[in-house]
Amino acid sequence: MARWEPNARERLERAALELFVERGYDTTTAAEIAERAGLAKSSFFRHFSDKREVLFGGQDVLNRLFADAITAAPAEATPIEALGAGLEALAAVFNAERHGWARQRQAIVTSHDDLRERELLKMAALTGSMADALRERGVPDPAASLAAELGCLALRNAYTRWVDPSNNQGFATLARQSLHDLKTATTALT
Amino acid sequence: MARWEPNARERLERAALELFVERGYDTTTAAEIAERAGLAKSSFFRHFSDKREVLFGGQDVLNRLFADAITAAPAEATPIEALGAGLEALAAVFNAERHGWARQRQAIVTSHDDLRERELLKMAALTGSMADALRERGVPDPAASLAAELGCLALRNAYTRWVDPSNNQGFATLARQSLHDLKTATTALT
Repeated sequence: MARWEPNARERLERAALELFVERGYDTTTAAEIAERAGLAKSSFFRHFSDKREVLFGGQDVLNRLFADAITAAPAEATPIEALGAGLEALAAVFNAERHGWARQRQAIVTSHDDLRERELLKMAALTGSMADALRERGVPDPAASLAAELGCLALRNAYTRWVDPSNNQGFATLARQSLHDLKTATTALT
Repeated sequence: MARWEPNARERLERAALELFVERGYDTTTAAEIAERAGLAKSSFFRHFSDKREVLFGGQDVLNRLFADAITAAPAEATPIEALGAGLEALAAVFNAERHGWARQRQAIVTSHDDLRERELLKMAALTGSMADALRERGVPDPAASLAAELGCLALRNAYTRWVDPSNNQGFATLARQSLHDLKTATTALT
Protein backbone atom coordinates (compact mmCIF):
# COMPACT_ATOMS: atom_id res chain seq x y z
CA MET A 1 0.00 0.00 0.00
CA ALA A 2 1.22 3.49 -0.83
CA ARG A 3 2.43 5.63 2.05
CA TRP A 4 0.59 8.85 2.77
CA GLU A 5 2.55 11.54 0.95
CA PRO A 6 1.42 15.05 1.87
CA ASN A 7 1.22 17.40 -1.17
CA ALA A 8 2.97 14.84 -3.36
CA ARG A 9 1.57 16.33 -6.60
CA GLU A 10 2.68 19.85 -5.74
CA ARG A 11 6.10 18.65 -4.58
CA LEU A 12 6.58 16.74 -7.84
CA GLU A 13 5.48 19.73 -9.93
CA ARG A 14 7.86 22.06 -8.11
CA ALA A 15 10.77 19.59 -8.26
CA ALA A 16 10.16 18.99 -11.99
CA LEU A 17 10.24 22.68 -12.90
CA GLU A 18 13.41 23.20 -10.82
CA LEU A 19 15.17 20.32 -12.58
CA PHE A 20 13.96 21.30 -16.08
CA VAL A 21 15.38 24.80 -15.51
CA GLU A 22 18.65 23.51 -14.01
CA ARG A 23 19.42 20.54 -16.30
CA GLY A 24 17.03 20.82 -19.24
CA TYR A 25 13.73 19.10 -19.89
CA ASP A 26 15.05 16.36 -22.19
CA THR A 27 17.68 14.93 -19.84
CA THR A 28 15.62 15.01 -16.63
CA THR A 29 13.98 11.68 -15.76
CA ALA A 30 10.84 10.94 -13.75
CA ALA A 31 13.04 9.13 -11.19
CA GLU A 32 15.16 12.26 -10.71
CA ILE A 33 12.05 14.38 -10.24
CA ALA A 34 10.71 11.99 -7.59
CA GLU A 35 14.11 11.94 -5.85
CA ARG A 36 14.30 15.75 -5.74
CA ALA A 37 10.77 15.76 -4.28
CA GLY A 38 11.84 13.24 -1.62
CA LEU A 39 9.51 10.56 -3.01
CA ALA A 40 9.84 7.10 -4.57
CA LYS A 41 9.91 6.82 -8.38
CA SER A 42 6.60 4.94 -8.28
CA SER A 43 5.00 8.05 -6.74
CA PHE A 44 5.61 9.96 -9.95
CA PHE A 45 3.56 7.58 -12.06
CA ARG A 46 0.80 7.39 -9.46
CA HIS A 47 0.25 11.11 -10.01
CA PHE A 48 1.23 11.67 -13.67
CA SER A 49 0.84 9.38 -16.68
CA ASP A 50 4.13 10.60 -18.24
CA LYS A 51 6.87 13.22 -17.81
CA ARG A 52 4.95 15.76 -19.90
CA GLU A 53 1.89 15.72 -17.64
CA VAL A 54 3.82 17.17 -14.68
CA LEU A 55 3.76 20.57 -16.44
CA PHE A 56 -0.03 20.45 -16.99
CA GLY A 57 -1.20 19.60 -13.47
CA GLY A 58 -3.70 22.42 -13.03
CA GLN A 59 -5.62 21.89 -16.26
CA ASP A 60 -8.78 20.40 -14.72
CA VAL A 61 -9.03 23.34 -12.33
CA LEU A 62 -8.75 25.78 -15.26
CA ASN A 63 -11.41 23.97 -17.29
CA ARG A 64 -13.81 23.96 -14.35
CA LEU A 65 -13.22 27.62 -13.40
CA PHE A 66 -13.83 28.67 -16.99
CA ALA A 67 -16.93 26.54 -17.59
CA ASP A 68 -18.51 27.40 -14.22
CA ALA A 69 -18.13 31.13 -14.88
CA ILE A 70 -19.74 30.77 -18.32
CA THR A 71 -22.64 28.87 -16.74
CA ALA A 72 -23.02 31.48 -13.97
CA ALA A 73 -23.08 34.49 -16.36
CA PRO A 74 -26.43 36.38 -16.49
CA ALA A 75 -28.99 34.84 -18.86
CA GLU A 76 -28.98 37.99 -21.02
CA ALA A 77 -25.18 37.94 -21.52
CA THR A 78 -24.01 37.43 -25.12
CA PRO A 79 -21.67 34.49 -25.82
CA ILE A 80 -18.70 36.90 -25.84
CA GLU A 81 -19.76 38.42 -22.51
CA ALA A 82 -20.05 34.93 -21.00
CA LEU A 83 -16.54 34.12 -22.29
CA GLY A 84 -15.34 37.36 -20.68
CA ALA A 85 -16.65 36.12 -17.32
CA GLY A 86 -14.80 32.83 -17.89
CA LEU A 87 -11.52 34.59 -18.71
CA GLU A 88 -11.74 36.84 -15.67
CA ALA A 89 -12.33 33.82 -13.44
CA LEU A 90 -8.88 32.51 -14.49
CA ALA A 91 -7.25 35.51 -12.80
CA ALA A 92 -7.80 33.56 -9.56
CA VAL A 93 -5.05 31.14 -10.66
CA PHE A 94 -3.05 33.37 -13.03
CA ASN A 95 -2.14 35.66 -10.13
CA ALA A 96 0.99 37.55 -9.04
CA GLU A 97 2.15 34.67 -6.83
CA ARG A 98 2.21 32.27 -9.79
CA HIS A 99 3.78 34.67 -12.26
CA GLY A 100 7.40 33.53 -11.96
CA TRP A 101 6.39 29.86 -12.12
CA ALA A 102 4.24 30.48 -15.22
CA ARG A 103 7.08 32.28 -17.03
CA GLN A 104 9.57 29.49 -16.42
CA ARG A 105 7.04 26.82 -17.34
CA GLN A 106 5.98 28.55 -20.56
CA ALA A 107 9.57 28.97 -21.75
CA ILE A 108 10.07 25.20 -21.43
CA VAL A 109 6.75 24.27 -23.09
CA THR A 110 7.31 26.62 -26.04
CA SER A 111 10.75 25.21 -26.83
CA HIS A 112 9.75 21.51 -26.98
CA ASP A 113 7.52 20.11 -29.71
CA ASP A 114 6.23 17.24 -27.57
CA LEU A 115 5.18 19.69 -24.86
CA ARG A 116 3.55 21.98 -27.43
CA GLU A 117 1.56 18.95 -28.64
CA ARG A 118 0.41 18.20 -25.10
CA GLU A 119 -0.51 21.86 -24.58
CA LEU A 120 -2.58 21.79 -27.78
CA LEU A 121 -4.42 18.70 -26.51
CA LYS A 122 -5.17 20.53 -23.24
CA MET A 123 -6.29 23.65 -25.13
CA ALA A 124 -8.59 21.49 -27.30
CA ALA A 125 -10.14 20.04 -24.12
CA LEU A 126 -10.60 23.56 -22.71
CA THR A 127 -12.18 24.74 -25.97
CA GLY A 128 -14.51 21.73 -25.81
CA SER A 129 -15.55 22.61 -22.23
CA MET A 130 -16.22 26.22 -23.25
CA ALA A 131 -18.33 25.13 -26.23
CA ASP A 132 -20.33 22.70 -24.02
CA ALA A 133 -20.98 25.43 -21.43
CA LEU A 134 -22.15 27.79 -24.18
CA ARG A 135 -24.46 25.12 -25.69
CA GLU A 136 -26.01 24.66 -22.24
CA ARG A 137 -26.78 28.40 -22.30
CA GLY A 138 -28.70 27.82 -25.55
CA VAL A 139 -26.03 29.01 -27.99
CA PRO A 140 -26.52 26.90 -31.15
CA ASP A 141 -23.74 25.32 -33.26
CA PRO A 142 -21.58 26.34 -35.04
CA ALA A 143 -21.77 29.64 -33.06
CA ALA A 144 -20.89 27.80 -29.82
CA SER A 145 -17.78 26.19 -31.40
CA LEU A 146 -16.73 29.44 -33.04
CA ALA A 147 -17.18 31.42 -29.81
CA ALA A 148 -15.12 28.80 -27.95
CA GLU A 149 -12.29 29.14 -30.51
CA LEU A 150 -12.44 32.90 -30.08
CA GLY A 151 -12.35 32.48 -26.28
CA CYS A 152 -9.36 30.14 -26.56
CA LEU A 153 -7.54 32.62 -28.81
CA ALA A 154 -8.28 35.43 -26.31
CA LEU A 155 -6.89 33.24 -23.51
CA ARG A 156 -3.73 32.40 -25.48
CA ASN A 157 -3.15 36.05 -26.45
CA ALA A 158 -3.71 37.26 -22.88
CA TYR A 159 -1.53 34.50 -21.40
CA THR A 160 1.31 35.18 -23.85
CA ARG A 161 1.25 38.85 -22.89
CA TRP A 162 0.96 38.02 -19.17
CA VAL A 163 4.08 35.80 -19.12
CA ASP A 164 6.10 38.25 -21.25
CA PRO A 165 9.06 39.50 -19.17
CA SER A 166 8.23 43.13 -20.00
CA ASN A 167 4.61 42.87 -18.79
CA ASN A 168 3.46 44.32 -15.49
CA GLN A 169 -0.33 44.16 -15.98
CA GLY A 170 -2.61 41.65 -14.29
CA PHE A 171 -4.18 38.75 -16.20
CA ALA A 172 -7.78 40.05 -15.90
CA THR A 173 -6.87 43.38 -17.54
CA LEU A 174 -5.02 41.65 -20.38
CA ALA A 175 -7.86 39.16 -20.88
CA ARG A 176 -10.47 41.95 -21.13
CA GLN A 177 -8.27 43.78 -23.66
CA SER A 178 -7.66 40.63 -25.76
CA LEU A 179 -11.35 39.76 -25.87
CA HIS A 180 -12.28 43.34 -26.79
CA ASP A 181 -9.71 43.35 -29.63
CA LEU A 182 -11.06 40.04 -30.98
CA LYS A 183 -14.66 41.23 -30.74
CA THR A 184 -13.72 44.30 -32.80
CA ALA A 185 -11.84 42.07 -35.26
CA THR A 186 -14.91 39.91 -35.98
CA THR A 187 -16.47 42.87 -37.78
CA ALA A 188 -13.43 43.11 -40.11
CA LEU A 189 -13.76 39.51 -41.31
CA THR A 190 -16.65 39.73 -43.75
CA MET B 1 24.53 4.86 -49.34
CA ALA B 2 20.77 4.39 -49.52
CA ARG B 3 19.43 2.40 -52.45
CA TRP B 4 17.03 4.13 -54.79
CA GLU B 5 13.57 3.21 -53.53
CA PRO B 6 10.83 4.29 -55.95
CA ASN B 7 7.77 5.77 -54.16
CA ALA B 8 9.11 4.67 -50.78
CA ARG B 9 7.06 7.26 -48.86
CA GLU B 10 3.79 6.29 -50.55
CA ARG B 11 4.53 2.57 -50.11
CA LEU B 12 5.23 3.08 -46.39
CA GLU B 13 2.06 5.14 -45.95
CA ARG B 14 -0.07 2.52 -47.68
CA ALA B 15 1.54 -0.37 -45.78
CA ALA B 16 1.11 1.46 -42.45
CA LEU B 17 -2.60 2.08 -42.94
CA GLU B 18 -3.15 -1.56 -44.01
CA LEU B 19 -1.38 -2.86 -40.90
CA PHE B 20 -3.07 -0.39 -38.53
CA VAL B 21 -6.46 -1.57 -39.85
CA GLU B 22 -5.51 -5.27 -39.73
CA ARG B 23 -3.62 -5.46 -36.42
CA GLY B 24 -4.25 -2.17 -34.63
CA TYR B 25 -2.14 0.96 -34.43
CA ASP B 26 -0.57 0.28 -31.02
CA THR B 27 0.89 -3.14 -31.80
CA THR B 28 2.24 -2.38 -35.30
CA THR B 29 5.95 -1.49 -35.37
CA ALA B 30 7.91 0.64 -37.82
CA ALA B 31 9.89 -2.49 -38.78
CA GLU B 32 6.67 -4.32 -39.70
CA ILE B 33 5.52 -1.38 -41.80
CA ALA B 34 8.83 -1.31 -43.68
CA GLU B 35 8.67 -5.10 -44.19
CA ARG B 36 5.12 -4.92 -45.59
CA ALA B 37 6.30 -2.17 -47.96
CA GLY B 38 9.22 -4.36 -49.06
CA LEU B 39 11.79 -1.97 -47.59
CA ALA B 40 14.45 -2.08 -44.87
CA LYS B 41 13.54 -0.79 -41.38
CA SER B 42 16.05 2.06 -41.79
CA SER B 43 13.98 3.28 -44.75
CA PHE B 44 11.10 4.05 -42.42
CA PHE B 45 13.11 6.47 -40.31
CA ARG B 46 14.67 8.09 -43.38
CA HIS B 47 11.16 9.16 -44.39
CA PHE B 48 9.33 9.62 -41.05
CA SER B 49 10.62 10.83 -37.67
CA ASP B 50 8.34 8.44 -35.76
CA LYS B 51 5.43 6.01 -36.23
CA ARG B 52 2.85 8.76 -35.87
CA GLU B 53 4.24 10.81 -38.77
CA VAL B 54 3.36 8.12 -41.33
CA LEU B 55 -0.31 9.14 -40.99
CA PHE B 56 0.45 12.85 -41.60
CA GLY B 57 2.55 12.60 -44.74
CA GLY B 58 0.61 15.03 -46.92
CA GLN B 59 0.53 17.91 -44.44
CA ASP B 60 3.08 20.14 -46.21
CA VAL B 61 1.12 19.82 -49.46
CA LEU B 62 -2.10 20.85 -47.66
CA ASN B 63 -0.46 23.86 -46.01
CA ARG B 64 0.97 25.04 -49.33
CA LEU B 65 -2.27 24.52 -51.30
CA PHE B 66 -4.20 26.46 -48.70
CA ALA B 67 -1.73 29.35 -48.33
CA ASP B 68 -1.16 29.68 -52.09
CA ALA B 69 -4.91 29.94 -52.74
CA ILE B 70 -5.27 32.64 -50.06
CA THR B 71 -2.40 34.58 -51.65
CA ALA B 72 -3.90 34.19 -55.15
CA ALA B 73 -7.39 35.40 -54.14
CA PRO B 74 -8.45 38.76 -55.72
CA ALA B 75 -7.20 41.84 -53.83
CA GLU B 76 -10.77 42.92 -53.07
CA ALA B 77 -11.71 39.54 -51.46
CA THR B 78 -12.59 39.71 -47.73
CA PRO B 79 -10.57 37.49 -45.34
CA ILE B 80 -13.45 34.98 -45.30
CA GLU B 81 -13.62 34.92 -49.10
CA ALA B 82 -9.87 34.31 -49.26
CA LEU B 83 -10.28 31.43 -46.80
CA GLY B 84 -13.05 30.06 -49.01
CA ALA B 85 -10.61 29.95 -51.92
CA GLY B 86 -8.12 28.10 -49.69
CA LEU B 87 -10.71 25.54 -48.61
CA GLU B 88 -11.85 24.88 -52.17
CA ALA B 89 -8.24 24.32 -53.23
CA LEU B 90 -8.08 21.38 -50.80
CA ALA B 91 -10.70 19.56 -52.88
CA ALA B 92 -7.78 18.72 -55.19
CA VAL B 93 -6.48 16.30 -52.54
CA PHE B 94 -9.69 15.51 -50.64
CA ASN B 95 -11.14 13.88 -53.75
CA ALA B 96 -13.23 10.77 -54.45
CA GLU B 97 -10.13 8.62 -55.01
CA ARG B 98 -8.81 9.39 -51.51
CA HIS B 99 -12.15 9.04 -49.73
CA GLY B 100 -11.78 5.46 -48.50
CA TRP B 101 -8.21 6.09 -47.36
CA ALA B 102 -9.26 9.25 -45.47
CA ARG B 103 -12.09 7.44 -43.67
CA GLN B 104 -9.85 4.62 -42.45
CA ARG B 105 -7.10 7.03 -41.45
CA GLN B 106 -9.45 9.35 -39.54
CA ALA B 107 -10.98 6.47 -37.55
CA ILE B 108 -7.47 5.53 -36.34
CA VAL B 109 -6.40 9.10 -35.55
CA THR B 110 -9.59 9.87 -33.61
CA SER B 111 -9.27 6.81 -31.37
CA HIS B 112 -5.67 7.41 -30.22
CA ASP B 113 -4.72 10.33 -27.97
CA ASP B 114 -1.12 10.47 -29.22
CA LEU B 115 -2.35 10.73 -32.81
CA ARG B 116 -4.91 13.39 -31.85
CA GLU B 117 -2.04 15.36 -30.29
CA ARG B 118 -0.02 15.09 -33.49
CA GLU B 119 -3.05 16.14 -35.53
CA LEU B 120 -3.52 19.19 -33.32
CA LEU B 121 0.13 20.13 -33.88
CA LYS B 122 -0.41 19.85 -37.66
CA MET B 123 -3.63 21.88 -37.45
CA ALA B 124 -1.79 24.56 -35.44
CA ALA B 125 0.85 24.72 -38.20
CA LEU B 126 -1.89 25.00 -40.84
CA THR B 127 -3.63 27.76 -38.86
CA GLY B 128 -0.27 29.56 -38.62
CA SER B 129 0.22 29.33 -42.43
CA MET B 130 -3.30 30.68 -43.02
CA ALA B 131 -2.72 33.60 -40.63
CA ASP B 132 0.63 34.41 -42.31
CA ALA B 133 -0.98 34.35 -45.77
CA LEU B 134 -3.76 36.68 -44.54
CA ARG B 135 -1.22 39.09 -42.96
CA GLU B 136 0.58 39.24 -46.30
CA ARG B 137 -2.73 40.37 -47.82
CA GLY B 138 -2.75 43.25 -45.32
CA VAL B 139 -5.20 41.76 -42.78
CA PRO B 140 -4.09 43.12 -39.37
CA ASP B 141 -3.87 41.14 -36.12
CA PRO B 142 -5.83 39.90 -34.26
CA ALA B 143 -8.25 39.69 -37.25
CA ALA B 144 -5.74 37.51 -39.17
CA SER B 145 -5.39 35.03 -36.26
CA LEU B 146 -9.14 34.98 -35.68
CA ALA B 147 -9.91 34.43 -39.37
CA ALA B 148 -7.36 31.59 -39.46
CA GLU B 149 -9.05 29.92 -36.45
CA LEU B 150 -12.39 30.29 -38.24
CA GLY B 151 -10.86 28.79 -41.40
CA CYS B 152 -9.43 25.88 -39.43
CA LEU B 153 -12.81 25.25 -37.78
CA ALA B 154 -14.50 25.32 -41.21
CA LEU B 155 -11.92 22.81 -42.48
CA ARG B 156 -12.43 20.49 -39.50
CA ASN B 157 -16.22 20.67 -39.77
CA ALA B 158 -16.16 20.03 -43.53
CA TYR B 159 -13.60 17.21 -43.20
CA THR B 160 -15.61 15.53 -40.40
CA ARG B 161 -18.71 15.59 -42.59
CA TRP B 162 -16.74 14.47 -45.66
CA VAL B 163 -15.35 11.32 -43.98
CA ASP B 164 -18.70 10.46 -42.37
CA PRO B 165 -19.87 7.08 -43.76
CA SER B 166 -23.32 8.52 -44.59
CA ASN B 167 -21.92 11.41 -46.64
CA ASN B 168 -22.01 11.44 -50.43
CA GLN B 169 -21.19 15.11 -51.08
CA GLY B 170 -17.85 16.39 -52.36
CA PHE B 171 -15.41 18.23 -50.11
CA ALA B 172 -15.73 21.59 -51.93
CA THR B 173 -19.52 21.68 -51.39
CA LEU B 174 -19.17 20.80 -47.71
CA ALA B 175 -16.41 23.38 -47.23
CA ARG B 176 -18.50 26.15 -48.79
CA GLN B 177 -21.44 25.20 -46.54
CA SER B 178 -19.29 25.08 -43.37
CA LEU B 179 -17.72 28.44 -44.09
CA HIS B 180 -21.11 29.99 -44.84
CA ASP B 181 -22.54 28.65 -41.55
CA LEU B 182 -19.59 30.04 -39.59
CA LYS B 183 -19.83 33.41 -41.31
CA THR B 184 -23.51 33.58 -40.30
CA ALA B 185 -22.59 32.50 -36.76
CA THR B 186 -20.12 35.38 -36.29
CA THR B 187 -23.04 37.79 -36.28
CA ALA B 188 -24.68 35.87 -33.40
CA LEU B 189 -21.65 36.23 -31.13
CA THR B 190 -21.95 39.83 -29.98
